[in-house]
Amino acid sequence: MSNIIVAQSGGPTSAINASLIGVVRAARECDSYDKIFGALHGISGVINEDFMELTDTEEELIMRTPASYLGSCRVKLPEVAPGNETFTRLFEVFKKYDIGAFFYIGGNDSMDTVDKLSKYAKLIGSDVRFAGVPKTIDNDLVNIDHTPGYGSAAKFIASTMLEIGYDTAVYEAPCVTIVEIMGRNAGWLTAAAALARNDTNPTPQLIYLPEVTHSEDEFIDDVKKVLEKTNNVVVAVSEGLKNKQGQYMTASTAREDKFGHAQLSGVGKYLETVVRDRLGIKCRSVELNILQRCAGHISSKTDLLEAEGLGWFAVEKTIEGYTGFMASIKRVDSEYSEADDNYAVSFYMVELDSIANKERCVPREWINEAGNDVTTEIVDYIMPLIQGELQPVYKDGLPLYASIPHLVPRS
Amino acid sequence: MSNIIVAQSGGPTSAINASLIGVVRAARECDSYDKIFGALHGISGVINEDFMELTDTEEELIMRTPASYLGSCRVKLPEVAPGNETFTRLFEVFKKYDIGAFFYIGGNDSMDTVDKLSKYAKLIGSDVRFAGVPKTIDNDLVNIDHTPGYGSAAKFIASTMLEIGYDTAVYEAPCVTIVEIMGRNAGWLTAAAALARNDTNPTPQLIYLPEVTHSEDEFIDDVKKVLEKTNNVVVAVSEGLKNKQGQYMTASTAREDKFGHAQLSGVGKYLETVVRDRLGIKCRSVELNILQRCAGHISSKTDLLEAEGLGWFAVEKTIEGYTGFMASIKRVDSEYSEADDNYAVSFYMVELDSIANKERCVPREWINEAGNDVTTEIVDYIMPLIQGELQPVYKDGLPLYASIPHLVPRS
Repeated sequence: MSNIIVAQSGGPTSAINASLIGVVRAARECDSYDKIFGALHGISGVINEDFMELTDTEEELIMRTPASYLGSCRVKLPEVAPGNETFTRLFEVFKKYDIGAFFYIGGNDSMDTVDKLSKYAKLIGSDVRFAGVPKTIDNDLVNIDHTPGYGSAAKFIASTMLEIGYDTAVYEAPCVTIVEIMGRNAGWLTAAAALARNDTNPTPQLIYLPEVTHSEDEFIDDVKKVLEKTNNVVVAVSEGLKNKQGQYMTASTAREDKFGHAQLSGVGKYLETVVRDRLGIKCRSVELNILQRCAGHISSKTDLLEAEGLGWFAVEKTIEGYTGFMASIKRVDSEYSEADDNYAVSFYMVELDSIANKERCVPREWINEAGNDVTTEIVDYIMPLIQGELQPVYKDGLPLYASIPHLVPRS
Repeated sequence: MSNIIVAQSGGPTSAINASLIGVVRAARECDSYDKIFGALHGISGVINEDFMELTDTEEELIMRTPASYLGSCRVKLPEVAPGNETFTRLFEVFKKYDIGAFFYIGGNDSMDTVDKLSKYAKLIGSDVRFAGVPKTIDNDLVNIDHTPGYGSAAKFIASTMLEIGYDTAVYEAPCVTIVEIMGRNAGWLTAAAALARNDTNPTPQLIYLPEVTHSEDEFIDDVKKVLEKTNNVVVAVSEGLKNKQGQYMTASTAREDKFGHAQLSGVGKYLETVVRDRLGIKCRSVELNILQRCAGHISSKTDLLEAEGLGWFAVEKTIEGYTGFMASIKRVDSEYSEADDNYAVSFYMVELDSIANKERCVPREWINEAGNDVTTEIVDYIMPLIQGELQPVYKDGLPLYASIPHLVPRS
């Protein structure tokens, strides 16, 4: 029997370790692979032979631990070409450790890595199999109903927006609160703010996604209209909000990371200033920041179980002989399943090159005509993804998480 | 039997509604008072006769609901003087509703209100009794071991810092993360960040409280020293950090609220810029913002039970004939109590004018000599306050909270 390598890449989520456990459990149970190597810090860990064996791990604890148990990296592989140094090195390592399959849990860029590895394998006639297990809180991958990590982030965002609604409503004086939410050019995360509304909590009254361009004047008009009905206005805005000219509403701070994605920040602070200057009322901005991707204490159970299931599915498919695919999720008709609440999913394989370097945005018809709110369709879409909670485990008053190998400080 | 009024004032906390329930339960059980009126939006609700009866409420749900069930206000009463219009009006209302006692749940400024009301009562020979029930996440009241609301905020901060430690450690590249924490001129909340450290999580490595002044140079030297050992630096800073000249490290944005407290924001962003400019490495800042005072889904059970107990205690003492006091908490020797873990408290009364307009800061000896960390004494002090969790109650994937009367939108 050959061995496997599993690694994690890209930004942290609350569900990425559930996929890791899915891979580990399937590899152990399916009895087709021998050793399970975890590569530390993504593909770099393979290059550097920085491995740990995952045969006997605290699975339940790792499952609920946020961020990346194995660490992450932001390495982009070169284009596939015969004799390329990086690929030669990687396949040397695969041979040395008798690797039968490699599983990469990550986002868009990680799927690009898996795609290149499987293409190089084909080029040199290697029989190592390659599978991608998706994750991203942004939910912006194509060819998947929703991505692992999104449901937990959406649950944190909706819960926090509900609590912010309670917090901001205590005073009678007019006040505007702007909450800036992640998601780059896709509004999926920001749309989750709509789930905070209920019979008594009307906030957020305004939701701005980056799929529609906006102007300062329209924004101020929107806020004024809400102020006619209530003194407590809460606004959810995507970090990637653009003006009518298509520029980020904080264009001055735009930078690019090494994949050419713009680094966004500051639309909340910008709109805070606009409200204060033009309406002369109290305004604060809140940036949910990295909390929305690492709040493991309020993960969605649905999200974690699906993430685990996808890891398991990827392993099964490599055993069946498949390679060069991403494990994906589709919603299926729950009439034919045992699931409650009209929600059920099944897993399937999609081609890697249909994923890489594409971005899935919120459909225009799921945003209202004025572009300042979402429709019920997207609420119905998100609702099942945030359902369920793990039984909380606390130690000394804090959530209990697994000890992370790469967190141990250098001595 | 006479009736009572209870009201809430000041900023939201996760425990202020537990004190409300304590008052309600005691007033009902003690059989000395008849009706329980909740005044909406603090003392303004009394002036405006904006009352709701609290006889039959969803107590368990209100107990766990963050922010103020009855709404809040920021009204400062005038100085006590015979015939003053505001006081005359207030005591008219007390008479009209046959009020035997008034309970005000709030912070420093609210205690000032209770103090003035009890002094005016003495002046005019009224037998209405007045009691203050403290709350503030800042933990900066004097004559109390710790304030209700602080334990829950500290639990959120420590949990979030732990999750941020996991999140920021995933990459190998050098990165500094600055986390800005509330607390005005007192470092109690920021000190709670130290509780996030454990065997594998060394972060935050640096903790700066406002009780010690700092310089940019010292800060950069501190960060450099940590970078010699690890690439992942997390820094906890108080919003009220001051430089050697005693100015807020974001002096340019300092404003004052109507009580003369400076409005602080931005030390995190400021230090982020300093790190990026002077060290040329990746740096982000995270502002925990209002989330730290309203995260009801991760409240400390110890905090909520003590908050409830203080409300109950205040009612009992007015029945015994006391007036013009604040219900306070002291730690007692647990050898003589049934409590575990060497932690036990008892309640007692303190004079209101010993509280108002005073600020309790972290003792210098609980901060290390270099002023960039806290000592174990403060960790031991905070630890019992964050212990215990309520059994979580979720509905449709979100924490279930009580419907708030003042949250219902105007039609």
